[in-house]
Amino acid sequence: MPDEVHYSDYLHLDKILGAQNPLSKQHQPAHDEMLFIVIHQAYELWFKQLLFELESVNGIMQQPSLNDNSPELQTVVHRLSRCAEILKVLVHQIDILETMTPMDFLDFRDLLRPASGFQSRQFKLLEARLGLKYEHRYGQSYYISQLRPEEIRAIRQAEADKSLLELVNGWLERMPFFDYQDSADFWPAYRSIYRQSLAEAEKANLAFFDLVFDVKTDPGARKGEQKQTEPVRSLSPAACRAALFIMLYRGYPILQLPFQLLNQLLEIDEQLSTWRYRHMSMVHRMIGMRIGTGGSTGKDYLHSALERHYIFKEVAALSSFLIERRRLPSLGPDMEKRLGFAG
Amino acid sequence: MPDEVHYSDYLHLDKILGAQNPLSKQHQPAHDEMLFIVIHQAYELWFKQLLFELESVNGIMQQPSLNDNSPELQTVVHRLSRCAEILKVLVHQIDILETMTPMDFLDFRDLLRPASGFQSRQFKLLEARLGLKYEHRYGQSYYISQLRPEEIRAIRQAEADKSLLELVNGWLERMPFFDYQDSADFWPAYRSIYRQSLAEAEKANLAFFDLVFDVKTDPGARKGEQKQTEPVRSLSPAACRAALFIMLYRGYPILQLPFQLLNQLLEIDEQLSTWRYRHMSMVHRMIGMRIGTGGSTGKDYLHSALERHYIFKEVAALSSFLIERRRLPSLGPDMEKRLGFAG
Amino acid sequence: MPDEVHYSDYLHLDKILGAQNPLSKQHQPAHDEMLFIVIHQAYELWFKQLLFELESVNGIMQQPSLNDNSPELQTVVHRLSRCAEILKVLVHQIDILETMTPMDFLDFRDLLRPASGFQSRQFKLLEARLGLKYEHRYGQSYYISQLRPEEIRAIRQAEADKSLLELVNGWLERMPFFDYQDSADFWPAYRSIYRQSLAEAEKANLAFFDLVFDVKTDPGARKGEQKQTEPVRSLSPAACRAALFIMLYRGYPILQLPFQLLNQLLEIDEQLSTWRYRHMSMVHRMIGMRIGTGGSTGKDYLHSALERHYIFKEVAALSSFLIERRRLPSLGPDMEKRLGFAG
Amino acid sequence: MPDEVHYSDYLHLDKILGAQNPLSKQHQPAHDEMLFIVIHQAYELWFKQLLFELESVNGIMQQPSLNDNSPELQTVVHRLSRCAEILKVLVHQIDILETMTPMDFLDFRDLLRPASGFQSRQFKLLEARLGLKYEHRYGQSYYISQLRPEEIRAIRQAEADKSLLELVNGWLERMPFFDYQDSADFWPAYRSIYRQSLAEAEKANLAFFDLVFDVKTDPGARKGEQKQTEPVRSLSPAACRAALFIMLYRGYPILQLPFQLLNQLLEIDEQLSTWRYRHMSMVHRMIGMRIGTGGSTGKDYLHSALERHYIFKEVAALSSFLIERRRLPSLGPDMEKRLGFAG
Repeated sequence: MPDEVHYSDYLHLDKILGAQNPLSKQHQPAHDEMLFIVIHQAYELWFKQLLFELESVNGIMQQPSLNDNSPELQTVVHRLSRCAEILKVLVHQIDILETMTPMDFLDFRDLLRPASGFQSRQFKLLEARLGLKYEHRYGQSYYISQLRPEEIRAIRQAEADKSLLELVNGWLERMPFFDYQDSADFWPAYRSIYRQSLAEAEKANLAFFDLVFDVKTDPGARKGEQKQTEPVRSLSPAACRAALFIMLYRGYPILQLPFQLLNQLLEIDEQLSTWRYRHMSMVHRMIGMRIGTGGSTGKDYLHSALERHYIFKEVAALSSFLIERRRLPSLGPDMEKRLGFAG
Repeated sequence: MPDEVHYSDYLHLDKILGAQNPLSKQHQPAHDEMLFIVIHQAYELWFKQLLFELESVNGIMQQPSLNDNSPELQTVVHRLSRCAEILKVLVHQIDILETMTPMDFLDFRDLLRPASGFQSRQFKLLEARLGLKYEHRYGQSYYISQLRPEEIRAIRQAEADKSLLELVNGWLERMPFFDYQDSADFWPAYRSIYRQSLAEAEKANLAFFDLVFDVKTDPGARKGEQKQTEPVRSLSPAACRAALFIMLYRGYPILQLPFQLLNQLLEIDEQLSTWRYRHMSMVHRMIGMRIGTGGSTGKDYLHSALERHYIFKEVAALSSFLIERRRLPSLGPDMEKRLGFAG
Repeated sequence: MPDEVHYSDYLHLDKILGAQNPLSKQHQPAHDEMLFIVIHQAYELWFKQLLFELESVNGIMQQPSLNDNSPELQTVVHRLSRCAEILKVLVHQIDILETMTPMDFLDFRDLLRPASGFQSRQFKLLEARLGLKYEHRYGQSYYISQLRPEEIRAIRQAEADKSLLELVNGWLERMPFFDYQDSADFWPAYRSIYRQSLAEAEKANLAFFDLVFDVKTDPGARKGEQKQTEPVRSLSPAACRAALFIMLYRGYPILQLPFQLLNQLLEIDEQLSTWRYRHMSMVHRMIGMRIGTGGSTGKDYLHSALERHYIFKEVAALSSFLIERRRLPSLGPDMEKRLGFAG
Repeated sequence: MPDEVHYSDYLHLDKILGAQNPLSKQHQPAHDEMLFIVIHQAYELWFKQLLFELESVNGIMQQPSLNDNSPELQTVVHRLSRCAEILKVLVHQIDILETMTPMDFLDFRDLLRPASGFQSRQFKLLEARLGLKYEHRYGQSYYISQLRPEEIRAIRQAEADKSLLELVNGWLERMPFFDYQDSADFWPAYRSIYRQSLAEAEKANLAFFDLVFDVKTDPGARKGEQKQTEPVRSLSPAACRAALFIMLYRGYPILQLPFQLLNQLLEIDEQLSTWRYRHMSMVHRMIGMRIGTGGSTGKDYLHSALERHYIFKEVAALSSFLIERRRLPSLGPDMEKRLGFAG
């Protein structure tokens, strides 16, 4: 590289623009294969960026002393919101792929077998970094069969690291204002108001409330613990209590960024799920009931993954437990002070 | 109205801008109720426009003599593509509604009971005009319970009229170039190439091919007929043959607009289904497992409707039966001539 | 209205859906006039919502004691970000209008004269509430000629109220952490680093720096004052100093929401300007060099308004005065403490 | 490459994902430089795809015998509409870049000098392929100074090839139905109706009409010729007549695809111009009045290019010359027949 930076050197455009080799060139050139290559490369570029942002976010969230007076929580929120913006563009990109008709795809589809998008190492890493575990993935054996050994190792390693979901759980459990005694009184009072708010047909929600927040008995004693007989949950009762508290009292200065953070998690889940949904529809429109280039059940896989691969569904579900603002228990003056600025 | 047209008179802005009366004003004003009202009114305005376009489209498609030399088929394609553009904006509008948090919604949610979006007469008319029948709707009794008698009557009436799906079926059956004998030879040849193209695991598709196109026996004799033992289908074998032919030979002048028309149907279905999906996710994020203002199962309804309410799924499924362009049977010179311009 | 709330009553759908009366119906019906009416009504509905949000924002910003420990600043940011989301949909709606071709518009264009979008009272109110003054509006006499006396009165009244721009100026001037003496030392130091960062060709920026921030002399003495010989500016030097400080040190807890607020102002300006730009292009595509229904120079007006009607341009221009993070003067411990949480 | 195609080999992900080398890594790592690199690489990937589509389109348009009975015109329309979809995503991508704040950009901005987006060879090629000539480019000497000799050669070569604008001109001139004598009678009649349609203030449009269509004298004799004293125009009078005729009678089968083609040209211009506009606003927001990394006047360049670089403005301007559908001269039966299908 010369001393003076040049745009094309800086961006390594020789590599980027020299990486399109349609297989159909060796047979009967299929015009749309170029689009197929370029759009998948664009997806992978953005997956790299998403991973880069997410790894930086996880790095920050790992600091046990994440200080709410530091700029770092703001950085986390900002980078997660960037991830959501990127995901919106990835959804939009499907509009481009849909300009390829099923007939145009047929012109080169057989040449690609058995390559398929299921082999995207980066996308699986992304899911793992967010919090998807192997045992929750749909179609586990199929999933393995599509990957190379080194890819499986890399994804397993990523799954072994703390995911964003786990880090969020830890961060919620550590929320400082919950060391105060206010908290102990707060939850039984809240539970009682919540119970009154339930319609007759919703009474079953109370048992779920108890499961999620574990407030009938001594909450402090059980922090992070999970009973064997209950469905496996990703968020501990202590984390759920903190998250609900943030949603309820988001107006206090110290809770504003935490509230934004929780919101960004839901936004990411929603964009990711919209992407999966539009992707699934597009595959359906493209190949109907035919078998995908990966030798399988494309649409079925995507359909099942849609429900299962929601990462932050336990955060989303907390909206079931909100009560009206005017019925909220008032906080004591000590708590109010702790939630404000130095002033 | 004065002689000189004025913007606000022309648009009846007194009515439009005087139609927002938040119920919470009489109690404790809830800021976000205004947004809730305005966005639903905007949806209803656009539903009116969609119905207007769709009724004009159905009107044109009803003409048995729809002449492919007339500008009318172009008008149909143009108006359907406008419908797709409108639906894209309706999907986008959900971004606005998502700026309302669950807590903000709680501030006025109870005041609305039992009103709910299920009571949108126009949306149900829209589904009916497109081709959704009462017996295919998810949750039929629930559906009835939410509507007023005159609304049910209006929707039943719309269902009794020929829907776009039925009109498309008729139009496909009438495709003029299929009176030629080429057609009779064509299908067995096509079926044989298709059979060869199937992978081992896909062999079952052949039976489905025969069901859909009815080509083993005499196709002409059965036009429009359906066997009792088979799943109820909306498109007759003759219509399916015409539609597949259009997809295969879309390059010929006379097939270009028909191809665009079929594509627009799929585009409308996809946008409508994306809207349902995002709507469902938004409701889930907003109320969790709580019961909707309509007293019911909001999310479950939306989830089930998602699959069931695909109107043109039989058109989409035809992509299962395509073969590669280079293997297409060549058409005879008579047929080629019929597919071109006067020249 | 009956005891049980019904969707169509709640939304006053009789008014909303009964307000479309195409003028061409009395002559030769022009199909696209319905779209023209509906889209303008949808725009006006959203303008109403924008005004509603903006008036609530201005109401909050008017409180001289706007306490940064209260949830109200968060409310302001949230509602401004909702405005930006709405504006994005308004930009998107232009895609729908573009499905009307120039020929289709011609079918009813003459019937509308002299009505035109220039007569939208709500849009002019919106500009006034944000901060556009009559004397900065492009084409003042033309502007007046298009409006009814009561509309002019309403807009003049809105212009007489404190606009968001003025309220932001006041709020910035009151920023509490600037009563500290750190501030007095800070600016000369900053100016010196800034001067060093300027390339040779940029030296003129220094004079502009001095004009904007007024830091060479005693800044405290001049708060809010403007010299007669300088270009009229909307933001005082004290406000500009606070805004720049927020951009530079946005990481500190107490500055996080103020930073988001400034960003939302720019976002609103950008969306509004994108809307104007796309609107202008659309008008150009629709009528070419013909005269608009308002009897005037549609495209020229829009083109000129584009530059002139940027409301928060002085905030945007502050990015000219940033320096690299690693060169920032460090703040004293007192200041650091003031910028944090109670802890 | 192994016998079995693998996703990552097929897409050359080693190249694509190994081409991000932030310069700030060698100094003080700046987090946002990765985004800056990735988004520009994504832009260049899409520029490659746009060039690929455009070159195929120009290839087809070059065939003097472009037969309107062939599928090729449909292919042109389809690929242009794909270009428009890609451009929409490129506009959307700016939302991602805007998540980088001016302060974050400052962290690595100086390292990039003098590299800048002006050095994008592909973007300049794209403009050249569409029809932008060197002499119409804003800031010619500046433009040259930013490029390497081989890049200038490549762009000059592209400018020497027939551009899409020139090919469209030729295709319009060759429109077959204009050999008929109907055409000779048609234009004087049309001119007379047009003249009557002009408002008093628009009378000057008539001179422009005569310049553009050259209909007062014998049009046949001048095909493609341009008078020296008139402003240089890209489209000949014969081409303009054909284009206007297509807009007026777009409903006839043979004119349907040509009408879609003209519309796609305007759509591409509009998306490209929206991209330039949003790009300009973003640069303004990012660096204010500072000098860009390319050592220049970023925003000024972009502002001027905005107006000048409209490629198909002469097509857009034709909407000035439309008349109402009900006043259109009726075509003779011969012409009507020529405009239809073989039937």
